[in-house]
Amino acid sequence: MVKVVGILGSLRPDSYSALALQQAIERVQALGAEAEILDLREMNLPFCDGGSEYPNYPDVELLRSKVKAADGLILTTPEYHGSVSGVLKNTLDLMSFEHLSDKVTGLISVLGGQSNSNALNTMRIIVRWVHGWVIPEQIAIGQAWQAFDTEGKLKDEKLAERFDAFAQSLVDNSIKLKK
Amino acid sequence: MVKVVGILGSLRPDSYSALALQQAIERVQALGAEAEILDLREMNLPFCDGGSEYPNYPDVELLRSKVKAADGLILTTPEYHGSVSGVLKNTLDLMSFEHLSDKVTGLISVLGGQSNSNALNTMRIIVRWVHGWVIPEQIAIGQAWQAFDTEGKLKDEKLAERFDAFAQSLVDNSIKLKK
Amino acid sequence: MVKVVGILGSLRPDSYSALALQQAIERVQALGAEAEILDLREMNLPFCDGGSEYPNYPDVELLRSKVKAADGLILTTPEYHGSVSGVLKNTLDLMSFEHLSDKVTGLISVLGGQSNSNALNTMRIIVRWVHGWVIPEQIAIGQAWQAFDTEGKLKDEKLAERFDAFAQSLVDNSIKLKK
Amino acid sequence: MVKVVGILGSLRPDSYSALALQQAIERVQALGAEAEILDLREMNLPFCDGGSEYPNYPDVELLRSKVKAADGLILTTPEYHGSVSGVLKNTLDLMSFEHLSDKVTGLISVLGGQSNSNALNTMRIIVRWVHGWVIPEQIAIGQAWQAFDTEGKLKDEKLAERFDAFAQSLVDNSIKLKK
Repeated sequence: MVKVVGILGSLRPDSYSALALQQAIERVQALGAEAEILDLREMNLPFCDGGSEYPNYPDVELLRSKVKAADGLILTTPEYHGSVSGVLKNTLDLMSFEHLSDKVTGLISVLGGQSNSNALNTMRIIVRWVHGWVIPEQIAIGQAWQAFDTEGKLKDEKLAERFDAFAQSLVDNSIKLKK
Repeated sequence: MVKVVGILGSLRPDSYSALALQQAIERVQALGAEAEILDLREMNLPFCDGGSEYPNYPDVELLRSKVKAADGLILTTPEYHGSVSGVLKNTLDLMSFEHLSDKVTGLISVLGGQSNSNALNTMRIIVRWVHGWVIPEQIAIGQAWQAFDTEGKLKDEKLAERFDAFAQSLVDNSIKLKK
Repeated sequence: MVKVVGILGSLRPDSYSALALQQAIERVQALGAEAEILDLREMNLPFCDGGSEYPNYPDVELLRSKVKAADGLILTTPEYHGSVSGVLKNTLDLMSFEHLSDKVTGLISVLGGQSNSNALNTMRIIVRWVHGWVIPEQIAIGQAWQAFDTEGKLKDEKLAERFDAFAQSLVDNSIKLKK
Repeated sequence: MVKVVGILGSLRPDSYSALALQQAIERVQALGAEAEILDLREMNLPFCDGGSEYPNYPDVELLRSKVKAADGLILTTPEYHGSVSGVLKNTLDLMSFEHLSDKVTGLISVLGGQSNSNALNTMRIIVRWVHGWVIPEQIAIGQAWQAFDTEGKLKDEKLAERFDAFAQSLVDNSIKLKK
């Protein structure tokens, strides 16, 4: 059984990143994976100060143990200033090789404007740095304000198919690459 | 008179990034610039939630007004996971075009291991995205734990000369590009 | 008087990159700059072998002297495989710091599919590496096959305005940064 | 049986990239893989003109068929101007999804100066774009002129161990990810 953790890298109350991640999570679950979202809006995490101990923040330990126990990871970020959100990057900074290495990771970015791969590229280099794998299938949702219907489903069928392929690749390759 | 603001993107108590930024700031001051450090360890900034108002955090306004009033900017980050620190990226996320555009920006990264330009590249793309200028002179300090003497000066003369050229370029080109 | 050289990084007979570069060149000329296109389809350049001498290829010297004499540079590439074209990169490989440093450079990429900034980012890092300046204004033309009318003019007014701002910035800042 | 093709992205007569690639190839062979080097110095390849047919250059077909038949790929480049060599990028431009997708790829860069990951990052984004996999283990050899002994072996044991891990990962994961 493959375990997938999705990290939601947006703190916005009505986050399109949350909708996007939900779409991915439902799909990996439909493929038989156990999947869970770590919603940074509901976690109390500090800014990383370069150290490894955060005794006043039990959510740091929760984050680390959940991610460490996962086979697959989904990183979802709004693209802020042509890159990953600070809050998502900070969440990654709170973890180290022992939590992140060897995970099979899928990347999703969400933009208000035209679709772009800046944030995806940044995340790909970061995940490589912690010795994770990144699946080739990646998703950038442009003009996210018109991408979802009122039930949070994807309006565009092509985009929905990209999510299908994304989830399939994440689950299949988490199994294949599992040690 | 050129005004330069340096943002210290590390929260570590004994931060080598702080020492590096101090070296740059002293040099731009020696060239006649007015210069100031925004030390994130001494500011109380929230995680960016995608909105623009943070009424409970007056330091957001302080950050924005200081940066807006500057001609030149120095961004200093420890390289975490092959990229910019989350806390620095979050600080940038709290600002927008009106604060960051047209600034002439210099980039410094500090690493425990071998020197690399991953974090510098990330910052360069980010600053471009907010329509800032980035000077070609950039500094990555590898093995930062042995780069400074007990008084915080640079031990390596070649590196010190790179700081000289960095400061000179920042000041000269802030003047040239000023509207 | 500002001198601008545009390098056309496509060898395709009916190149959209050529149309895009033409649009930029006309605009910098209208602003009073002297401008010229180096069309790689009409030059006989070898693959760079890591050496600096290419006695059998007089166009190497032509390339180098033209670029060296310019204040501003426009690099235009089709986006191939999410990056700069090999032929443009090879052309840059044939030059060195003495030809490329301190140039004020504008970047244009042309794609068949959706607009993206992968090739632009690659070029930005390359130009920095040779100590050139890159203007913040950059242009990625997506779905280039429908971007131009039969006379080679831009159909989309917003895109035409981006070219206006691109040309203005290139000329203005070439003057400002000129030593 | 895993088949690996290594592409040598340097045309320099005494290429350190060739020595580096040789080290990797020997190791994957020792692990039971069938491995072959495509030495661009010995192939007659044209500049890519955006088309797919090169009837006067039979080596294009050779390149494509060799790469298509491989499970694993090693891309080796000298870092020119903070990026991949033009000649290697051009070689990739001559191929398409049908040749490059799904390959498990390892990346090596060779520099005269200090080690850096610019060219590696560029290649990682390119390989992703053609839907290939890139192993997390990557190698940048700095100051390549002092990295090899007279028999072409690696002088530094740590670096040799990185090659061991690189080869092991390439072979193991080519098997795991093979469809």
